[in-house]
Amino acid sequence: MYKNKTNLIGLVIPDISHPFFSKIVKFIERDLYLKDYKMILCNATENSEKEKEYLTMLQENKVDGIIIGSHTLETEFYTKIRSPIVALDRYLSDSIPVISSNHAQGGRLAAEKLIENGCKNVLQVVGSRKVDTPSNERHDDFEKMMKENGIQCNSVELEWNKFSFSDYEIVSKYILEEYPDVDGIFSVDLVASSIIKYAQKKNIQIPEDLKVVGYDGTDISQIVNPSITTIRQPFELISSSTVDILDRLIKKEKDIPIKNIFDVQLIEGETTL
Amino acid sequence: MYKNKTNLIGLVIPDISHPFFSKIVKFIERDLYLKDYKMILCNATENSEKEKEYLTMLQENKVDGIIIGSHTLETEFYTKIRSPIVALDRYLSDSIPVISSNHAQGGRLAAEKLIENGCKNVLQVVGSRKVDTPSNERHDDFEKMMKENGIQCNSVELEWNKFSFSDYEIVSKYILEEYPDVDGIFSVDLVASSIIKYAQKKNIQIPEDLKVVGYDGTDISQIVNPSITTIRQPFELISSSTVDILDRLIKKEKDIPIKNIFDVQLIEGETTL
Repeated sequence: MYKNKTNLIGLVIPDISHPFFSKIVKFIERDLYLKDYKMILCNATENSEKEKEYLTMLQENKVDGIIIGSHTLETEFYTKIRSPIVALDRYLSDSIPVISSNHAQGGRLAAEKLIENGCKNVLQVVGSRKVDTPSNERHDDFEKMMKENGIQCNSVELEWNKFSFSDYEIVSKYILEEYPDVDGIFSVDLVASSIIKYAQKKNIQIPEDLKVVGYDGTDISQIVNPSITTIRQPFELISSSTVDILDRLIKKEKDIPIKNIFDVQLIEGETTL
Repeated sequence: MYKNKTNLIGLVIPDISHPFFSKIVKFIERDLYLKDYKMILCNATENSEKEKEYLTMLQENKVDGIIIGSHTLETEFYTKIRSPIVALDRYLSDSIPVISSNHAQGGRLAAEKLIENGCKNVLQVVGSRKVDTPSNERHDDFEKMMKENGIQCNSVELEWNKFSFSDYEIVSKYILEEYPDVDGIFSVDLVASSIIKYAQKKNIQIPEDLKVVGYDGTDISQIVNPSITTIRQPFELISSSTVDILDRLIKKEKDIPIKNIFDVQLIEGETTL
């Protein structure tokens, strides 16, 4: 039988204070614990050296495996590694298993909802294209469906690593001032909450004048008023699959699937009809 | 010179998905990293066996030290331990250093604000008294100031380990229905956001009819509309002090202070005048 060397797993993410990561990390810690692993947490946003250091720990057998939900290094760096690594919502290399939501489906569900609601001029807030994440796939499908339905679709790209609420306030202000005729918005929950707040200050009625569909399905979508109609990522399934696949890599099992994609779900809130 | 054995630190908290913990953990990870430690994260809420396991790891020298922000075990369990432990906002024993905000000051600042705003009948939402945390000290000072000023002060206690937004919705509904004459509320940001939402649904004007002061100073206070006037805990100072004191314990330094208390700050929002 295979014996673990350290029972430690490294988890590298951009920012634990972001509600998406704090929620998924809660489940990953629980699922690792159930398989007798402990989790070393690394916030990598501000420091690509940190991510490199964790990969080095892996090569020196100080951890049994690594989950990478960040992406600060060149692709060559990842492809050289032969130790157990899984990628959480990131494309690292063709040989590293990736676990993610079905983001394309998420883009389509959001588009359908705004189309059903009669929107004629929509806008989506796009994550930085610098980050090679499956998550960006939602935008292509969203735009495609809008075009197929003759609906104008604008895109505003967020700057890389702009994660604070004050950054979102600047974007919200920009959007509502530069695109006053937009009647439907698609963005992650946190940005959506900021747009809603700014729209309320400008007496724009939601959902009457402006429909909003969020993305992620974090608690934020429930906390704000009106609650946000949102595409919920399957946090529990992503977590259990991530831990399961990493465990199989550590145990040197064969035929481990590279692409592991899970359905998302539209949760009805009060920002659409 | 002292040499670390593992450079690993265990951090035991109730729930990483709670915005207070996800924010403080971000800083603790950063501060530990600057001192060449890596952080093993343990979510303990649902499982007191987990906390015990981490304390055992410490005794077996699998980690160099532990930060405990949870409290699921009997006091005897902590007092027996002679290895480096610090308590994050919890009273564990007389010999274990505790790092916390000046919660009594927080209670007074919140009371002052509601008194200045002319409130005559206030209510505070109290954390479970089952948890022996310095954080509960804010409630005594809040109530004392209200009594000194001839203001009626009601208290509603949260159930232990009720951390989800749907639990807060139940409490919000209860408060606004059972205490319709209350004109000022003091509670943690998350509960405050839920009360604000429910008050808006009932057409109660904030701050005209109801003033709200939050506690914690998490991003939630900025995300909701109106933004919440809140008592901000000094996340950065609490984190750096926690890491510094643990590092000194690990290095077997002398004269380490047991009580380490840091000033809080009132941040003006839109839920008070």
